[in-house]
Amino acid sequence: MKFSRFTVQSSVYNGVITDDNIIREIKGDMFGEWEYTGKTFSWTEVKLLSPLEPNQIIGIGANYVSNVDELPRDLPEIPVFFFKPTSSVIGPEEEIVIPDTLDRVKFESELAIVIGKEAKNVPEEEVLHYVFGYTIGNDVTAPQYFHQDGHWTIGKSFDTFTPLGPVIETELDPFPVEVTAKLNDVEKQNSSTELMIIPIRKMVSYLTRVMTLKPGDVILTGSPVGAELVEAGDVIECEIQEIGKLRNTFVAARESINA
Amino acid sequence: MKFSRFTVQSSVYNGVITDDNIIREIKGDMFGEWEYTGKTFSWTEVKLLSPLEPNQIIGIGANYVSNVDELPRDLPEIPVFFFKPTSSVIGPEEEIVIPDTLDRVKFESELAIVIGKEAKNVPEEEVLHYVFGYTIGNDVTAPQYFHQDGHWTIGKSFDTFTPLGPVIETELDPFPVEVTAKLNDVEKQNSSTELMIIPIRKMVSYLTRVMTLKPGDVILTGSPVGAELVEAGDVIECEIQEIGKLRNTFVAARESINA
Repeated sequence: MKFSRFTVQSSVYNGVITDDNIIREIKGDMFGEWEYTGKTFSWTEVKLLSPLEPNQIIGIGANYVSNVDELPRDLPEIPVFFFKPTSSVIGPEEEIVIPDTLDRVKFESELAIVIGKEAKNVPEEEVLHYVFGYTIGNDVTAPQYFHQDGHWTIGKSFDTFTPLGPVIETELDPFPVEVTAKLNDVEKQNSSTELMIIPIRKMVSYLTRVMTLKPGDVILTGSPVGAELVEAGDVIECEIQEIGKLRNTFVAARESINA
Repeated sequence: MKFSRFTVQSSVYNGVITDDNIIREIKGDMFGEWEYTGKTFSWTEVKLLSPLEPNQIIGIGANYVSNVDELPRDLPEIPVFFFKPTSSVIGPEEEIVIPDTLDRVKFESELAIVIGKEAKNVPEEEVLHYVFGYTIGNDVTAPQYFHQDGHWTIGKSFDTFTPLGPVIETELDPFPVEVTAKLNDVEKQNSSTELMIIPIRKMVSYLTRVMTLKPGDVILTGSPVGAELVEAGDVIECEIQEIGKLRNTFVAARESINA
């Protein structure tokens, strides 16, 4: 099923998208008890939002190789995980704002896992029971704001730096799917999830051995090779065919971030 | 006023603590509209919880000098900020669990800011209007899990690694207060907030120029010199006199974190 969040005339709804592009409104807890309200919308009258308001957002760094021959035999002992603030989330077609101190920022198209159940100390073979579904994330990044000692927080945390969408697909089998990005209609990223260095089950299992994951936690699983710096006016379309297209335009900041 | 969260016979309450140690229950939104219910509890019958369930937790690294002569003339261009997961929060007297792969972890006593209003692009001189109050945080850390390239996420993220409490004091003037820690009754940390390299107004203003802060965001303002590695059985008491004492005991893990 494809779960969505959307607005119609400034009211916010949750819904399930049917095969013939009708959206059936639901109410309740997407991760628990929910039901159809009977109300339906046509695809053309809604404006999609980020398909959820995440509880937390966790990313993993440098997680793709160019081809399978490059996959390391030994996995890194401590993976590079980072958090992004939930205030950085936007939806499809919303503008990604480049901070006024910068000319360019980077796009990173990613498969995003949505956790559906509280998860602690989960063995790899049980990880998928805790996954509610998958969406697409664009882990927008300003490497100019990476601290010289390796801390990425500021460079990952600006408002609008985490587009998510268009929907959460609960029936996806991610082994494998192709994670792609087109910049101004030119393909820049296109890699199979088989090229992940730390694969999904291992990644989530590792995290649950450290912290309790909660429903609504989103895990950005890393970006294929090919991410680039872009500037105001550029249009980025992140796509995983089975989920959809997440399209956003980069714009220059209107407000100064310096006092 | 001192705001608290607590349990009595396994029900959770919010309350305001009066000068004579009576807790008056409140209902509503601590950051917005709330009222007294008329119900009161005596100090001895309640078990305090973390005084809030944070929306997000942001920390700052290496933010204290030993004495004022060491304060740098030029502040770092990009401060070292990091996130901690909200799943790492515990309350006063709860146990801090040392992961079973480790013998020792570090305590770090800190003044914690609780944001009360949505804050974006806030000038330094207006920062305090957005602060709801202050509590004490213990930024427990396993430096053994810091990534060699400088990423601290895993080392800061284990469950139970963020004790908060005992209360949120809304009337504190933090300029200055003394941030202290006693390990097994021996003083290990005792520094004035005047020894912060990036002071509170500058820290929060900088963050709001990057991301929109939300009510319930907690900012851990850094730890004085003197933090140490400790082991199971050790008792840590973080204190800021005007707020109270945050006391926790370190224990060994009962569950394995490795598969």
